[in-house]
Amino acid sequence: MGQGINDKVAIIGMGCTKFGEHWDKGSEDLIVEAFTEALGDAGIEKKDIQAAWYGSCYDEFNVGKSALPLSRTLKLPFIPVTRVENLCASGSEALRGAVYGVASGAYDIALALGAEKLKDTGYGGLPEINMSYGTKNRVIFPSISAPGVFAMMANRYFSKYGMTIEEGKRVLAKISVNSHRNGAKNPKAHLQRIITEEDVLKAPIIASPLGLFDCCGVSDGAAAAIVCRADMAKDFRPDPVLIKALQIAISSGEELGYTKWDGTYVEATGRTAVRAYEEAGIKNPREEISMMEVHDCFSITELVTYEDLGISPRGKARNDIEDGFFTIEGRIPSQPDGGLKCFGHPIAASGLRMLYEMYQQLQGRAGERQIRDPKVGLTHNLGGFPQMNVVSLVIVGL
Amino acid sequence: MGQGINDKVAIIGMGCTKFGEHWDKGSEDLIVEAFTEALGDAGIEKKDIQAAWYGSCYDEFNVGKSALPLSRTLKLPFIPVTRVENLCASGSEALRGAVYGVASGAYDIALALGAEKLKDTGYGGLPEINMSYGTKNRVIFPSISAPGVFAMMANRYFSKYGMTIEEGKRVLAKISVNSHRNGAKNPKAHLQRIITEEDVLKAPIIASPLGLFDCCGVSDGAAAAIVCRADMAKDFRPDPVLIKALQIAISSGEELGYTKWDGTYVEATGRTAVRAYEEAGIKNPREEISMMEVHDCFSITELVTYEDLGISPRGKARNDIEDGFFTIEGRIPSQPDGGLKCFGHPIAASGLRMLYEMYQQLQGRAGERQIRDPKVGLTHNLGGFPQMNVVSLVIVGL
Repeated sequence: MGQGINDKVAIIGMGCTKFGEHWDKGSEDLIVEAFTEALGDAGIEKKDIQAAWYGSCYDEFNVGKSALPLSRTLKLPFIPVTRVENLCASGSEALRGAVYGVASGAYDIALALGAEKLKDTGYGGLPEINMSYGTKNRVIFPSISAPGVFAMMANRYFSKYGMTIEEGKRVLAKISVNSHRNGAKNPKAHLQRIITEEDVLKAPIIASPLGLFDCCGVSDGAAAAIVCRADMAKDFRPDPVLIKALQIAISSGEELGYTKWDGTYVEATGRTAVRAYEEAGIKNPREEISMMEVHDCFSITELVTYEDLGISPRGKARNDIEDGFFTIEGRIPSQPDGGLKCFGHPIAASGLRMLYEMYQQLQGRAGERQIRDPKVGLTHNLGGFPQMNVVSLVIVGL
Repeated sequence: MGQGINDKVAIIGMGCTKFGEHWDKGSEDLIVEAFTEALGDAGIEKKDIQAAWYGSCYDEFNVGKSALPLSRTLKLPFIPVTRVENLCASGSEALRGAVYGVASGAYDIALALGAEKLKDTGYGGLPEINMSYGTKNRVIFPSISAPGVFAMMANRYFSKYGMTIEEGKRVLAKISVNSHRNGAKNPKAHLQRIITEEDVLKAPIIASPLGLFDCCGVSDGAAAAIVCRADMAKDFRPDPVLIKALQIAISSGEELGYTKWDGTYVEATGRTAVRAYEEAGIKNPREEISMMEVHDCFSITELVTYEDLGISPRGKARNDIEDGFFTIEGRIPSQPDGGLKCFGHPIAASGLRMLYEMYQQLQGRAGERQIRDPKVGLTHNLGGFPQMNVVSLVIVGL
């Protein structure tokens, strides 16, 4: 591997819309809102942006998927704007493009922005999306759904670690309760209300053992980051946030061997974590990471991610969850902004939304949700399925 | 702007399939073929590839557009693979991702690959693609087509520079004749045959004044580049090809002001060219560029591009075309491999296909089409329409 991009690039401005059901707005409105906040936050003007990367899974303009929705909406005349797409990691991929663009020396200041208007698409989750390979000539998994595969993961996990379904569901319920507890304090979250374990356990089942409150929201929203060369970041603000590590891994499933993989972990998260900790110089993540936003598309995903990240030992995330290790008062607060579960999940905006929270927490600007003296924040995205996915990890610090 | 990426990154291996109607192959077959050639050409193994960028407008796998079609096809376990899409510049965007990834220090060796299986999609040109904005809630240009808008450009150009339709059509015919003359010698070209001016002039009209032979092919194909740090490139081969400039510009149309723009040029190409020449240290492109592959989606596009690139003065490309300036024996041979017109146009493969020709020409490996002692090659892509587009320029040299 190369030398990494550790400390070469800093974030100097961020913006994020309220996530939710924006029936009265188009993706253009959301893009403008997130960008305007980021620009004001960085204290720069639009003309200072030299290049941009745009993440979106659904936003189209005229002739297929391009960067035109961002370029045209923001009237960014003639600068390079690139469209990236990698499932739920699309927002982190936009950041990665901007970070490499700056670290390469090609640009001094670049924009990463992710936006989705999911509510306009009739998006109801993965079953509506075509399940084909190549150019629609080979159908696999014709009846799979995201809740379905993650439910299988939950059942496998409960079985492997000797939990009954009732025990397991109660552990998972605590995950969603924590997210809603944090998100209820967040004026930008989609679903701003406290829920109880009983609410979770009594909710309608989506795919057993996962119920309605084990599943994240489907939201509209946009989030943006402005990055620049680390050596010029303090010209813009006293508290720029440094990119300490940025790693992506893609797993197409076949390399695992389905007969060997028991469905209770995501291999790509573990691989990405090892690389990201090395890049950031983190020896003991359980001791050194201050806070996290992980990809809780389903409650079981969050639990398994704690183990995949090496925070909780295999099979022991339950203990940490029950001990309050991941609450806002705990040792490593997780989902301080409410997570996908409560803040919402406009696919390509989510990675940058997570970063927005880590950024504001590091700067001491998280208001009621402020974590005491955080040093290092981690964001994690999982796009796709447990066995076939794109995983991104970003580690940031002051 | 930053310092540019001039001479930081080199190409050490390339591959390209035959373009054409591959009814007996899937995109997987094309990907494997282009990749295998590139790997062999670089003399490395698959495990040496540390990250990859994939350009495709149509290739899908399972749950929407991601990098999984490349990752899964090549069995690239757990390395980062990113999907980029920017209309007809998608292949150049894949290269740009790989180049920035290496220039940033994140990776030593990276892959860029573009592939399309257009023939499987029922692709018949832009009219089949939905013409909407945002999330399909606002229709503009409901009846526009690519031949339609480029035909308007041709008519405007003829009018502005005082040519009758018959005169103009005869100039354009020479462009297609040149591409077929070169491509007929290319065993990988889609349409390997010589055509005459009379063939072009007598062909069925697609959108007046453009006839069938003024329009590029619709093809299946894939092309790949392996790039590495310039300082290690000679460890792999004696004749690596250096990236001298890599520039992208996106134009959303509104910045031009439709009342001011007369439709006879592409502003983004001109802007990109200025930046690329500066990055490559080129003072006089007409003297310093040895050869080109430009985006001849239509014959008029190629003519206007000669002027936009500053090779021919405004309104004077006709003279250069009539003087044979762009033929294989001319001062700046253009489309030595046959261009989009004759080699074919599998959208996201085209940028890398152009580079494949420049790379082999620089290395003296272009066989019957070999240009004498070329020093600097240029590739140009135009995605979208004359007024709203993505333009990429790559300049390479030894």
